[in-house]
Parts: sequence; structure tokens; C-alpha cells
Amino acid sequence: MPQTFNPPIRTLMGPGPSDVHPRILQALSKPTIGHLDPEFVAMMDETKSLLQYAFQTKNELTIPVSAPGSAGMETCFVNLVEAGDEVIVCKNGVFGMRMIENVERCGATPIVISDDWGKPVDPNKLQDALKNHPNATTVAFVHAETSTGVESDVKTLVDIAHQHDCNTIVDAVTSLGGIPLKVDEWGVDAIYSGTQKCLSCTPGLSPVSFNERAIETIKSRQSKVQSWFLDLNLVMGYWGENTKRAYHHTAPINALYGLHESLLMLHQEGLENSWNRHNSHHQALRAGLEAMGMSFLVDESCRLPQLNVVFSPDGVDEAKVRSRLLTEYNLEIGAGLGEFAGKVWRIGLMGYASRKENVNLCLSALETVLADMNAPIEKGVALHAAQNSYNQIPI
Amino acid sequence: MPQTFNPPIRTLMGPGPSDVHPRILQALSKPTIGHLDPEFVAMMDETKSLLQYAFQTKNELTIPVSAPGSAGMETCFVNLVEAGDEVIVCKNGVFGMRMIENVERCGATPIVISDDWGKPVDPNKLQDALKNHPNATTVAFVHAETSTGVESDVKTLVDIAHQHDCNTIVDAVTSLGGIPLKVDEWGVDAIYSGTQKCLSCTPGLSPVSFNERAIETIKSRQSKVQSWFLDLNLVMGYWGENTKRAYHHTAPINALYGLHESLLMLHQEGLENSWNRHNSHHQALRAGLEAMGMSFLVDESCRLPQLNVVFSPDGVDEAKVRSRLLTEYNLEIGAGLGEFAGKVWRIGLMGYASRKENVNLCLSALETVLADMNAPIEKGVALHAAQNSYNQIPI
Repeated sequence: MPQTFNPPIRTLMGPGPSDVHPRILQALSKPTIGHLDPEFVAMMDETKSLLQYAFQTKNELTIPVSAPGSAGMETCFVNLVEAGDEVIVCKNGVFGMRMIENVERCGATPIVISDDWGKPVDPNKLQDALKNHPNATTVAFVHAETSTGVESDVKTLVDIAHQHDCNTIVDAVTSLGGIPLKVDEWGVDAIYSGTQKCLSCTPGLSPVSFNERAIETIKSRQSKVQSWFLDLNLVMGYWGENTKRAYHHTAPINALYGLHESLLMLHQEGLENSWNRHNSHHQALRAGLEAMGMSFLVDESCRLPQLNVVFSPDGVDEAKVRSRLLTEYNLEIGAGLGEFAGKVWRIGLMGYASRKENVNLCLSALETVLADMNAPIEKGVALHAAQNSYNQIPI
Repeated sequence: MPQTFNPPIRTLMGPGPSDVHPRILQALSKPTIGHLDPEFVAMMDETKSLLQYAFQTKNELTIPVSAPGSAGMETCFVNLVEAGDEVIVCKNGVFGMRMIENVERCGATPIVISDDWGKPVDPNKLQDALKNHPNATTVAFVHAETSTGVESDVKTLVDIAHQHDCNTIVDAVTSLGGIPLKVDEWGVDAIYSGTQKCLSCTPGLSPVSFNERAIETIKSRQSKVQSWFLDLNLVMGYWGENTKRAYHHTAPINALYGLHESLLMLHQEGLENSWNRHNSHHQALRAGLEAMGMSFLVDESCRLPQLNVVFSPDGVDEAKVRSRLLTEYNLEIGAGLGEFAGKVWRIGLMGYASRKENVNLCLSALETVLADMNAPIEKGVALHAAQNSYNQIPI
């Protein structure tokens, strides 16, 4: 007979979902009210303002899409891209590949520029592609590649795209709240994120933001947006400033309670403090991992603090290590993807998971399991190295 | 300064979301675990089984889409319909109109048969349309129209569609759990629902089910599904029986805890008991409303017990009544839509909202407010009539 599900208590240090703050779990369980209730509408407005703060934008069209980050990605593509368009996709990991799928399913042609997994997008390649494809309408790339832990330079890439009069679509699923992201200052036209990474919230919603240039593109489309559910012309009618909100779909009320609380927490902490916190714990984890003898996939200059991708020690069954961490320590870390499957671990320090307890748990559990499996690591040094780092870069 | 949102405690008797059971609210706030965690995967399997029970189907492809009912609708259309197809849409309310939008956005041609709002779909019109359009591939209609409170005869309509070798897409957003719905016995090919109606759960997920015939259609498509997020070929890889689950998108973990608990509650109550409960409270509410002198929009033979649509008394500002119910009694009832805007109320008795306390609250609050506004109603009789009904049709 099926029974009430009581999940184990895990520490979530994979690529997401990351640990959800207790305040947010509590928010989820508050009584449901109607999606047109005046009190709910007021909360929607506040959520929009808090999202504008998180994205560092004044964009009016800044809202959470009622579905996970993948749907946020699709919202950007189906609204901004039309059949026959040429779209430049900068691919340096899994999520660039998914962008290509999105472009194709819009009936548009993807112009793909590739960088190795673990490397940032090369601005020179984008410059060349735009010269070779003067009809391109859009440039799409990932700010923080969740598959490899690399950061690309949004501002530079956006500047180049704008020199060629292209819109930009930026994937900020793993970056929002964790590292500097300045939508207005950098001129990003369309951006999407997720709630389950550095916002410490549960998965299921996708914050998006569109500037005036993007909205102009949407309004001047020749064809209808192919998705009714994601058509921003309709979604705007519900989330817009109109006193009379047009019913579009039933908003996921309780999930939005959670997002509101998570954005409130980010606001209370302050964006810069959150960025600094992510960096401080990253440096401590890094010090511990390196002290054990492990090395990072991504060069320091473009390494994400919230997603630490390190090579597993030689000769160790990395899947076994992850499995033991989960069963013996209730600790989840992530596997490698693509060419790095079986070779790296992806260790997240995102949002509420970015805290000292997690750094210490991860280092000590990893050391214990690896030592037990006779891995070639330095023992008894990791926590000490982490503490030294905290002494130098306080939280 | 923004603050933690504390929603008012409402009684939700509109067209949805309906009251969410405390057990489900509690489930939502349990600690988040990873979407590939073995414990979570086991819960997914159990959720599938419980959904099969709710839908009365053995369909393997029975899963919750990670987005609201509108996305469930779109999942059915974008997977089963291709550009150039002819799709017969039976329209008798708002959601039939939305189906037409979906067909058009797939590049297909909608063949629309219309029935008046408040009337069920006429099988004879479907029969004629299929004769006149021998190339039609699909027939779509709504089981329980949320805009009017009318039930259409699924089995008859499916039989006719199958005589002409068409797939059927059925909207069961408001019917699932509230009235008899037998996917296998009736031969439905593709069906979608929502969580926020008779399942007593929060909005945000859309249970769907597809039979072998529908899967064959999907597998033999000429073109890729236009939505990456909703492409069942990919979703199946995650929700399927494979021991190795393919990552598609990050599942909305906590929302799925809630759905699991709501389906468990339905299983524990028993489907027939749930149907009977919805009917019993409907009859009591009906007795009270009629005793006050109000009448129903929909004929008794096809009236939904879970959504009571009644004309507001002559000369009464119905919006004012709803507003007073909300502010003075924390009671939400729904407005009319389309041609019935300003003329009817839609009073939901769905899921956990279908209980005696709600019937009595609604009748007494409505009577008090209407009397206060000098509406032409019979006073002092509603609760008595409701109790008489309960005596005759016990819960």
C-alpha cells in the first residue's frame, strides 16, 4: 500500500536543486488563496519588484514563468525567434546544445559556434560568426554553464551582438544570485533563470526578464508565438500593470509563495553580500579539495564559485564515491556530463547550500570515503586548509 | 520594505484553485531532495501508479507535466498534431476556444463545431463534422467545462471519433476525481487534467495520460514536436521505466510531494466515494440555492456537481456580492465568463472544498449578503433545505 512520502534529509551539493532554506519550505505550506485574489495580486507585484532587484533591471516585463528553467529558455526562444530566422548559438556545454534544439524547433536556423567544454565562450568567434552571417537576428549563450562550471563574459558578448544589431538571449539559471549579473548595465535583452540554484528555492519556476528592445521584437512578429502557454503577449496580460488582470492560466500559488520568500531573503542579505558569500565558501572548498590533491576543470579566471567541477582521483570509481556519499552521509554531489562523465564531480555551493557546514561536511565525507577506497589523496589536511581560507576571506 | 507574505485564510469555492487539504500543504514543506535521488525516483513511480488509479487506466505513459493545466493541454496538442492536420474541436465554452488556439499554433487547421455555452457537446454535430472532413486526424473536447459547469459525454464522443479513425484529446481539468472518468473503459487516447480542482492540491502540475494508439501517433510523426519542454519523446526518458533515467528538466520536487499526497488521499478515500461525496454536497448546495429562489444555468442531466453555476438574482450587483463575500466572509466564489459575465456565479465544491462546512458557509453568507442588498430571495430556508438534502443523500 502506498503511504505518505517522507523524504530523507539530504545535503544537496549537486548542480541543483540545492538546499532549500527552511523559511522557504515554510512559505510553501501556507494556505492557498485564489490567483485573482487582491492579496495575491499584491504579492505578485512585490515579487516582480524583488525579481527586478535580483536581475538588477528596471525591465517592466520581469516575471516568473510558471514552469522550470527549461520552459524559461523556451519562453525566450519562441517569443523572440521566428521561422526562417538565423540565430547564433554559442555552445560550450549541455545547455548550449539545448538552445540549438530550441532554435530548430522554432523553424529557425542555428549558427553554432563551439568552444570546448570547460572553456568560456570566445568573443572572437562570435565576432567572426556575426560578420559571416549578417542576417542573424539573435545571439544566445549561457552565462554560467551548469554542465562544466564555467562563466562566460556576458557584457562583452552582448556588446558584440549589439554592434551587429542582434538581440541577446542569456541563460542565467545557475548565475542568478550567486555571481554578479547586471541585466541593465550589461544590456541583456532577454534572460531566464531557475529558482532551484542560488535562490535557495524549490525547482519549478523560471524567472525571466525582457527589455524594451526584446518587447519590440515580440510585438512586431509576423507570426503568432507557437506556444500558447508561453506566449508573452498573453502572459503580460496577467502579470502586467493593468488594473484588470486577464486570466491566462492558474498561477502556481504556493510555489510563488516560496519564490517570494527566497527573493525577500536575497534582498535582506543584499546581492553583493550573497555574491561574496558564494565566493568565500568556494575558496574554502577549493582550498580543501586542492589540499587533498584534486584539481579543477575550469581555469581560475572563469570558474564559477557556486559550481565546483573537479577531477575525481585516478583509479577511483567515481560513481561508487557518489553513491557512498549519498547513502552514508546523505550528501548529494553531481556527476560529470558528456565527455566528462565518469571523470569529474560537480559540487554545488548554491544559495542556502553555500555555507560553512556544507563545506566541512563535503570535505570530511569525501576524504573519509576516498581514503577508505585507497584513493591517492592527501589525508588530514582538507578541513585545515578550508579554515585557513576562511581566515583570509571571511564570510 | 517587502516582508514575508502571510496569506489570508480563505475558503475557496470558485472554479479553482479549490481548498487545499492540510496534509497536502504539509507535504509541500518537506525537505527537498534531488530529482535523480533513488528515493525520489521511487516516489515518482508510486505517483504514476496512483495517477493510473485516478484516471482508471493502465496506460504506461501516465505522468504529471511540470506545469499547469494549460501546459497539459499544449502537451497533448503539440505531440499529437502536426502542421497541415485537420483537427475537430468541439467548442462549448472557454476551454474549447483555447483548444482552437492550440491547433492553430501547431500549424494545423481547426474544424470547429459549436454548441451554446452551458450545453454539452452534441454528438450528432461531431458525427456530421467527421463525415464532412474525412481527413481529420484528431477530435478534441472538454469533459467538464469550467466556464459553464456542463459535462459532455466522453464515451459517446470517443466512440464516434474512433469510428472515423481519429485520436481523441480530452480536457479533464475539472473532472478528475470529482465525477466518473474511465480512461481505458471509454477508450480516451490522450487526456490532461490539473491538480488544483478535485484533487485538493495546489495549482502548478498537469497530470496527463496517453494510450498506445496516441504513442504510436507520436512515434510516427513526420516532424519534431515544436516544444522541447513538452516533447513526450524526451519526457518519457525521464519518467519511463528505464533503470537509467535521462535528465530532461529538473522536476518540481516539492510540488510533486504535494501531488503524491493528494493522490494518496484519493486512493485512501476511494474514487467512487469521492464521486459520491461530490454529488452529495452538490445536492445540498443545490437545495439551498434553489430554496432561496436561484436557478442553475445547466440542465440537471449534464450538470457538474463540482461546479455549480447559478444565475445571480435580478437587480443585484453580482460583483459587489462576490467582493463582500471575500472581504466579510473570506469566501471566494467565481464570476461568470463570456456571455455570462455579470449574470452567473460559479460556485465550486471541488476536492477538499466539497464538504458540509463549505456548503453551509456559502449558503448562509450568500443569504446574509443578498438580504442586506435587498435582493429578491427567500430568506431563512437555505440551510434547512441543505440539511434535508443531506438526510436524503448522506455523504
